[in-house]
Formats: sequence, C-alpha cells, structure tokens
Amino acid sequence: MRNSKLKFSKAMAKVSPFRVMTVMDQASALEANGEKVVHMEVGEPDFTTAQPILNGAKEALNSGKTQYTLAPGISELREKIAGHYLRKYNLKISTKRILITPGASGGLTLLANMLVSPGDGILIPDPAYPCLRNFVRMLSAEPQLIPVDRVQNFQPNLTQIIQAKERNTVGIWLASPSNPTGTALRRDELTQIGQWAESNQLHVLVDEIYHGLQYVADIPSILEVYNDAFVVSSFSKYFGMTGWRLGWIIVPEGYVETAEMLAQNLFISASSIAQFAALNAFSNEAIEIFEERRNAFQLRKSFLTSELKSLGFVIPDEIHGAFYVYADISKFSQDAELFCNRLLAEHKVAITPGTDFGQHKARQHVRFAFTTSMKDLELGIERLNSALKI
Amino acid sequence: MRNSKLKFSKAMAKVSPFRVMTVMDQASALEANGEKVVHMEVGEPDFTTAQPILNGAKEALNSGKTQYTLAPGISELREKIAGHYLRKYNLKISTKRILITPGASGGLTLLANMLVSPGDGILIPDPAYPCLRNFVRMLSAEPQLIPVDRVQNFQPNLTQIIQAKERNTVGIWLASPSNPTGTALRRDELTQIGQWAESNQLHVLVDEIYHGLQYVADIPSILEVYNDAFVVSSFSKYFGMTGWRLGWIIVPEGYVETAEMLAQNLFISASSIAQFAALNAFSNEAIEIFEERRNAFQLRKSFLTSELKSLGFVIPDEIHGAFYVYADISKFSQDAELFCNRLLAEHKVAITPGTDFGQHKARQHVRFAFTTSMKDLELGIERLNSALKI
Repeated sequence: MRNSKLKFSKAMAKVSPFRVMTVMDQASALEANGEKVVHMEVGEPDFTTAQPILNGAKEALNSGKTQYTLAPGISELREKIAGHYLRKYNLKISTKRILITPGASGGLTLLANMLVSPGDGILIPDPAYPCLRNFVRMLSAEPQLIPVDRVQNFQPNLTQIIQAKERNTVGIWLASPSNPTGTALRRDELTQIGQWAESNQLHVLVDEIYHGLQYVADIPSILEVYNDAFVVSSFSKYFGMTGWRLGWIIVPEGYVETAEMLAQNLFISASSIAQFAALNAFSNEAIEIFEERRNAFQLRKSFLTSELKSLGFVIPDEIHGAFYVYADISKFSQDAELFCNRLLAEHKVAITPGTDFGQHKARQHVRFAFTTSMKDLELGIERLNSALKI
Repeated sequence: MRNSKLKFSKAMAKVSPFRVMTVMDQASALEANGEKVVHMEVGEPDFTTAQPILNGAKEALNSGKTQYTLAPGISELREKIAGHYLRKYNLKISTKRILITPGASGGLTLLANMLVSPGDGILIPDPAYPCLRNFVRMLSAEPQLIPVDRVQNFQPNLTQIIQAKERNTVGIWLASPSNPTGTALRRDELTQIGQWAESNQLHVLVDEIYHGLQYVADIPSILEVYNDAFVVSSFSKYFGMTGWRLGWIIVPEGYVETAEMLAQNLFISASSIAQFAALNAFSNEAIEIFEERRNAFQLRKSFLTSELKSLGFVIPDEIHGAFYVYADISKFSQDAELFCNRLLAEHKVAITPGTDFGQHKARQHVRFAFTTSMKDLELGIERLNSALKI
C-alpha cells in the first residue's frame, strides 16, 4: 500500500503490525461462512464488566459526571488505588505518585515520552508484549532485546541484563507476569534488577497489568523492593474493564510534576465515566466476582496446560498469572506462522504465532490464550488432537 | 522539582505546562475560601452530555458492550461519521479513512507519530492550541511558528507560509476554527494551502474539533478542497462529550493501513462505551439539543464581545466558532500573566494569559472562554468593569 508519494515518519519503517490481527481477520472470515472457530488468540477476558462497576458508571451518567477530570485523574480513585497497594503489598504510595491513564497503553505512551530520547537503548526481554518494542521505536530509540528461555521462566537474569546493556542504554522495561508467557519475576530477581538499575542510573519500568489475575500466592510488585521504579498497571485484566480504557502508572516522586504535564498534553484526562465506575472496583462485592473469575481462569489453565503437555507441547513448569500458555511447537513444526495458519484454516482453532512477540525462537513457539469457555477449550483440544495426529 | 538524579528524555526540557492550570489551581484555592469565582478560563462546554447519548451509554452497559473494539473503531460509528460528512459537507469519505480515537488528543498522538521524525519542522500558527507545539516537541521535531495577527483573522496567509517554510519543514498544522481565537480559515485560503502543500509534498493537518459549534453558516472542512489532508475532529465540543474522550481522524487512503497499525499499538481501541453512546449523537433528538446549546453559546458570544469592546479590549471582527475571545489588552497592561493573576486575585475573574498559546504578542493578549452561564458572564463583566476603572 505504501507508494512513493506517501511520506511517513522514519520510525514507521520499524513499527510492525500484530500477526494476531491477521489471525482474527481470518477467523472472522471463517465465521462469516458459518464455521465454528475456537478462539484462543484473544488477549482479553471473555467476561464482560462486573455489575458493581456498571452500576458505578450509571450513577456517573445520572449525576452528570461527563466532563474532563483533572489530568492525573480524580483523587477518590487515586486514593482507592493507594489503598489497594497498602492492602495487597503493604506499600504506602503517596497518591500524587499515582496517575490515572487511558489504559496501560496511555501509561506506556506517557512514560516513553518522559524517559526515552532518540538514539537511546531500552532493554526488553524477547519474547515480550509487541507494543513495548514499538513504543521505543516510535521515539526513534532502540529496543535492545534480551533473549529469554523457558528454563529461566522467560524472564531475564542479571547476568544477561549486564551483558545486554550498551553505552546508549537508559533503562529496562519488564513485564511481570509477562505476556505471552504468564511467568513472573521473583522478589530476589526484582531486588537485583533494582539495585543494578540504581547503581547504573538506569530506569526500571515494570508492566504489572496482570497482577491480581494470578495462580500463585505471591507475585511481588517491583515497588516492594525498589521505590524508584516506574509501574504500569490497568483495570483491564483482573478488574475486567478492557473496553473502558483505564489504567494507572506510579512514578517516583521527582517525576510527578513532569508526568502531570505530559498527561495534560497527551490525554487532557482519562475517561471520566470509566474513572467514576472504577471507584466500585475495590468493593467487596466486586472483588468477590473477580475472584470467582480468577478461579475460572485457574481451572482453564490447569486443563489446558495438562492437555497441551500430553499432546507434546513444551510449556513452562508454572504459569504464575495472566491467561496465556507460551508453547514450544518444535515437535510439530519449525514455522509457527505456517502452523497457526493451517491450524486455523484446516481445524478452526485460532492461536497466535510466537513471531508476534519477538525474534528469539519465535518460529518455534505459539501463544494459547485461555480467554474462552471451558467448553470451547475442550473443543479446541479435541481439534488440536486430530490436527496433530495427521 | 527536577534534581540532577532525575533523568528525563531530552524533549522534556522543551515541553511546557499550561499556565491555565495554575489559574485553575488558584481559582480552586479561592473557592475553597468561600469566594465566588467567575470561570472564563475553561476550554470545555459547561453543559453535561445530552440525554440521548447517556441513553446510548446505558444500553451499551446493559448489553455487555464493555470489551475492546477493533482498533479503528466500531464500523457503525465510522459509517455515521461518513454520513455526517456527506450531509454537512457534501463529501463522500470512505469509512476506512475514518479512525475513531481516544479524543482529539489520541488523534494528534497518532498523526504526530505517523508523520513526524526527529529534526523535522512543522509550521504552526502563533497563537495556537499549546499541545500542537508540544506534540511536535515530544517527537524531537521543531515547531516553526508563523506569527498571526488580528487583522488577518489570526490565520496564516500563503505569503507567510511560503516565507516560514524551511528546508526541514515536512508539514503544516492548522486549526479552523482556532483555539484561542475562534477564527476560521476561508475556503479560498484552504484551497491555496492545499495546492501549496501538494506541490511542495508537505503534509497538511487541520484540527477541526470546533466544527459544528459555529456562528457563521459556512465553515469549510479542508477535505472539501484538498482530499489528501489529515483531519482531527472530536465528539467533545459540539457533541458535548468531553469526559468520554472520543474523537476521530480522517487520513488519506494510502495512510489507512499504517494508521490502523499505530492505533493498535497506541490505544488498542477507543472506549467501547463512548463509541456505542456516540451512535446516538447524530439522531435528530440529539442534534436539536446541540443546536439549542449552540444558540446559547451564540448569545453569550454576542454579549461578551460587545461588552469587551465597550471596555476597551480589541478583539477580532468576527468570531466564527468555538467559545473563545482572544482579546488585546494593550490598553490596560503589557503583561498578560500579571493582568490575569491580578484579575483573579483581586476581582475573582479567571481568564487565560496569551502566553499559553505562543510567543507572538502573547503578553498583550488574554483568552476569555464563554463556557459559563450568561449570569456569570454578566457578573464577570461587572467585575472587569470595576477592575479596569481603578
């Protein structure tokens, strides 16, 4: 589509679309033909938003809370988030360090603009959420990928980080639990990374958007061990508010003023309706619903991981959180894209090729998302079974 | 607040906060002390969102439309916007050229990333909406300001544009009607600019977010005369949906694919609830409400402009749209910031100094927003009257 008359910014040559979008388009086409597709490609909970939050939104609508809010968000919500960190992590975070953003996407945009200059290098694990690399590239900076393997929980260790650092490196961006792998960083790993970053005067940014949606008791926040980190979080996953576009960031004290100024410029404010609705996300009634859903995800995870192992996929020993299984398909194929295409076209099962998430062994991995019903997961496994027997 | 340990991106040194925020903070402090402040600083309609749109949002909530949408937005809304261009401007815009964004802010973020590289120059009128300059600076590019005066309707003419163009110039960003001046570009001016841009292979981006909220019959869209322009628009102003964060952009055909890819990366999608709600924004019932409100704004404009003139402010001959009066205060002061500070502190009238909008004669201008009731406008004029008599 790009012809010579078109003039894009230089960064556009390096920003890549998601292959999962092609998968989704093809799945839609099949469904338009009356086919039943099993969707294990979608990175979004299949549950719609919980009733207490819907009620909060309706109250906001009825009381005319439809105007801009302060750029960093309404103080009631920032206080509730601070309370959440106190209860969940025993952390006292000053509310002014918490800024409400239009989704974690908005938070990443803000932090990238605040911290990254053209020519800078940012360390990022490979595989990782593809947007992380793209945010860096949009600012004409360089993602410096650290290849991570299953045996290390798909998280970088300090030795690798030290080796990967280059002269232009200004920070490291991590995700815990990670998309596409569902694996989290341990407390001792986070501590080491924090100490290393501090002594090297580098930024640490951790995407913690899957916190809460976890299958182990303790997934630590980087802020428990390193107060000067930048955290990106979200109401999308555990709180089930994807379509509302609401997240938050936590920044070190000295960055508050600049972050507020950027929020004014970049967003004016996050959605007022979403913010007032989210006030109900911390009620006991809401948390009960989220915990039920978390249990449902946990059952799906147990089913899917054990079935995939039986089929011959090689997967992490433990999925700590999120709703993904990053599976090695070496036994079946050396080309994840071809594998995904054929699985969809011939067996009507939609999954995402590893090539969406990086380069390192990407062609021998695929991502399964258990964001669909147990019934559909069972059907998916049945279909996989017959696909792989051929 | 910035100490040497903090490490910001280079662009941060050049991005500036809005002075209007300080005005708003000071006004809040006065109000906390029980003072009655007349707010003429706020760039947001004082009307809350119209009932048909609220109803649409409630339907969306009740039917579980709380998930991500496609990155460029739901097709029903894109089609309604296409219909709007056909009715209002007699323009056939292919729906795929229309992308729904999280506010005009999101649209500007997307277009800036798509079109601007570090070191590029972007022509921008002075005065203009301050974020325009800041979006350019965030991408390490250079805003190239064109000083514009009241006698030319605060819009740049072709001679100035040709003179202002430098070797690194890649585009021109305009707003019609403009914030802070409320003045629009004429059809012949838009035509000239389009022809010049085409022959120089430069981008033209026009912020048309105040279209609809207009006091003259015809405010043309750049797309009527130049099909290869980029347009930013919004549901915030005429449609009264500020807090929902919903806007749209229109891009030339060849840019659709890249714009979609950027929307995926930058936003995932705009708010689903806002999108479904906005489907009702084009109903006759809704438009009747918007037109009533437009009439109210028109009455306020007539009152405010005639009173300001009587008081000795020098203002444009005609305000074409939006809800601002950009007034020359030379008769009273040579320092707009001091003027605004004193007016607020001593007379409890909040307005915005020209220095928020640029450098050119900025210290001899202030912006009045008629986003408050006629009663408050009358009180404001009364207070101005006694302030200026001293």
